[in-house]
Amino acid sequence: MKNVFYAQSGGVTSVINSSAFGLFSELKDKAPGSDIYVGRNGIVGLIENEVYDLSKSTRPLELLLESPGGMFGSCRYKLPDIEEEEFYQDLFENLEKYSIGHFFYNGGNDSADTCLKISEAAKKLNYPLSAIAIPKTIDNDLAVTDNSPGFGSAAKYVATSVKEASLDVKSMCDTSTKVFILEVMGRHAGWIAAAAELANDDKNTYVHKILIPEVPFDADAFLDGVKRDVEEYGYSVIVASEGLKDEDGEFYTASNKKDSFGHSQLGGLAPKLANLISERFEFKHHWAVSDYLQRSARHIASETDIQQAISVGRAAANMALDGKTGSMPIICRESNDPYEWSIKEAGLIHIANKEKTVPLDFISEDGFRIRKEGVEYLKPLIMGESYPRYRDGVPYYEPLDLHLSEN
Amino acid sequence: MKNVFYAQSGGVTSVINSSAFGLFSELKDKAPGSDIYVGRNGIVGLIENEVYDLSKSTRPLELLLESPGGMFGSCRYKLPDIEEEEFYQDLFENLEKYSIGHFFYNGGNDSADTCLKISEAAKKLNYPLSAIAIPKTIDNDLAVTDNSPGFGSAAKYVATSVKEASLDVKSMCDTSTKVFILEVMGRHAGWIAAAAELANDDKNTYVHKILIPEVPFDADAFLDGVKRDVEEYGYSVIVASEGLKDEDGEFYTASNKKDSFGHSQLGGLAPKLANLISERFEFKHHWAVSDYLQRSARHIASETDIQQAISVGRAAANMALDGKTGSMPIICRESNDPYEWSIKEAGLIHIANKEKTVPLDFISEDGFRIRKEGVEYLKPLIMGESYPRYRDGVPYYEPLDLHLSEN
Repeated sequence: MKNVFYAQSGGVTSVINSSAFGLFSELKDKAPGSDIYVGRNGIVGLIENEVYDLSKSTRPLELLLESPGGMFGSCRYKLPDIEEEEFYQDLFENLEKYSIGHFFYNGGNDSADTCLKISEAAKKLNYPLSAIAIPKTIDNDLAVTDNSPGFGSAAKYVATSVKEASLDVKSMCDTSTKVFILEVMGRHAGWIAAAAELANDDKNTYVHKILIPEVPFDADAFLDGVKRDVEEYGYSVIVASEGLKDEDGEFYTASNKKDSFGHSQLGGLAPKLANLISERFEFKHHWAVSDYLQRSARHIASETDIQQAISVGRAAANMALDGKTGSMPIICRESNDPYEWSIKEAGLIHIANKEKTVPLDFISEDGFRIRKEGVEYLKPLIMGESYPRYRDGVPYYEPLDLHLSEN
Repeated sequence: MKNVFYAQSGGVTSVINSSAFGLFSELKDKAPGSDIYVGRNGIVGLIENEVYDLSKSTRPLELLLESPGGMFGSCRYKLPDIEEEEFYQDLFENLEKYSIGHFFYNGGNDSADTCLKISEAAKKLNYPLSAIAIPKTIDNDLAVTDNSPGFGSAAKYVATSVKEASLDVKSMCDTSTKVFILEVMGRHAGWIAAAAELANDDKNTYVHKILIPEVPFDADAFLDGVKRDVEEYGYSVIVASEGLKDEDGEFYTASNKKDSFGHSQLGGLAPKLANLISERFEFKHHWAVSDYLQRSARHIASETDIQQAISVGRAAANMALDGKTGSMPIICRESNDPYEWSIKEAGLIHIANKEKTVPLDFISEDGFRIRKEGVEYLKPLIMGESYPRYRDGVPYYEPLDLHLSEN
């Protein structure tokens, strides 16, 4: 049992493939006798026996360093409780078929749950397996780790985009748009919206209101604040998390759609806020919704983020080879300035299904801004640029050639 | 009468300031005795006698090459008919106060109208003036010129963004989102949406439907097509112009808001299309709205676009010094491959208030894609990267120090 299974899970990021590169290159170095198999579309590929045999790929693995999205496909799929023996017996039969001794699952807190179940099922079935989760989420809501690969690049995208859009609004506010709203992701944690504060200067040129799920939305205070922004600066720029909640803790914009984990599918916050403003003021407004653009913008990825994504992949390889299971490499901050970090490890029991939100001491008293402490935490994560190659004016994102195993 | 007035007008772009740089640097070289005055917020600054004296700015003009938005402020302001003598007498008194002999107006087709009126009013009032328009619009809808500065960078943003987002959708379509909609700008012309075709490969990996105002929207054909995309590729990626029109020629998404030119303020097409899809299919969908992000994304500007923006600025200077008036430098395409272009000139009478839409021979038979002829036209315009400097992880967009004249 010495072969390797890897899969990508949950919402993908612009750097998840860099973690795959870190893992694979470390394994090729430290465990050259192991074959690497990769699930097509996450754990679903293992369940349905659709598994890529990486030894058959001939294109360079370095392509993983440049391409956003999930090179091998990802999924939203919740494993049943480990009491469901038949399911897990079938799943472990598939692992055995490929002589898998090392299982790596690259995802967020739902995926940590999957990896923990696999680890526990292996013990129950007496199957020798190292099950290691590799952290990934643009939401930065994974517990225990200081930050999560994928977040830094989304944060850099948001800070850059809002700085640019604010210069547009500032140019025209006297005779045209006075309010601009950017809706970003973040279902329960406001990290991505918080990163907009990184665009700001000491004159508040770029961002005036940040709305995050950690702060119950007070429409009157918000509208009063927008009015003051327009009076003071000539315009108001607002960055809002999709998961903004009202004072009863309900999503401010909720739809009836739910995903396979039972999470509500959100969307439409920006136009809802724009309507709210229209009802009170005559201000012309514009709104943007970043949606998938923010989590796939490899063209403006953070170099720090890419290096951390590679490092957690490498560390996961070494943890598995050391016989660890049910654990995850985590990023530990050693110092802020200069920014220094190291990789340690933590048990999935502390991570699975948990959410790390923006701490209250990062949030300004009025609830609409990020304080110095938050900026100091966020700033190092977006540092450094890592440009992809371009061909014919668009980024050169080329896939690996992938071949399903015939086992 | 040898001094210079320059102003920026209409929706700003990520490269309009590069045209200002081209103009100013050429003037400093060819007419070193002229003082340069710049309208604060476009023509409004001239009317209200709020005019920056560029000789008082001490920071380097090269900052103009990096910063998106309008460095001097822009406006949406329609000049009255030139029969309104009192208005024009006041306006020309302000020009005379600064001994302005050269008037430059940097904008789109509404701004060409403004510049033409100024040119004609000058003749009527026997005021010696060269009034030259400098082309600028992300919409690429200016007549006569082969393309417009500002468009290439918006096009590069859209092609890059949709390529990235499509990789995200492709990664997860088996168990999650199957339809992704990106709404882009383009009120009457579909050029920006058309640029999404530049992301595509010969397997249609990245873009499946492009919806533009030139093609009346046929909802049934669209929905049938989306269904076929999902069957064939597993997902469907749609890029839609905000100005999409129905079969009666009405905006598919119209609001009651109008700007100062009487244009409807649009928005909300992406969620409307998403709802249309939800009513027919169970496909999970996501949507994004680029809004101002697409026209301010200097971080991913086209180097070709920047060079052309500078060149029209330089050419405008020379046209004015040659005594031309009521005209505009235009970009002429000499060849596609290798792409070669030159700057010529055209009368504003052929440009003002006109719109150049996507020609029918660029559009596929079904109306949902851009043909090879269109791709050949579009491709050179997004070529080349020109990265801004970064500080602390965000682009370094620093303003000039601007000082109002005390005249």
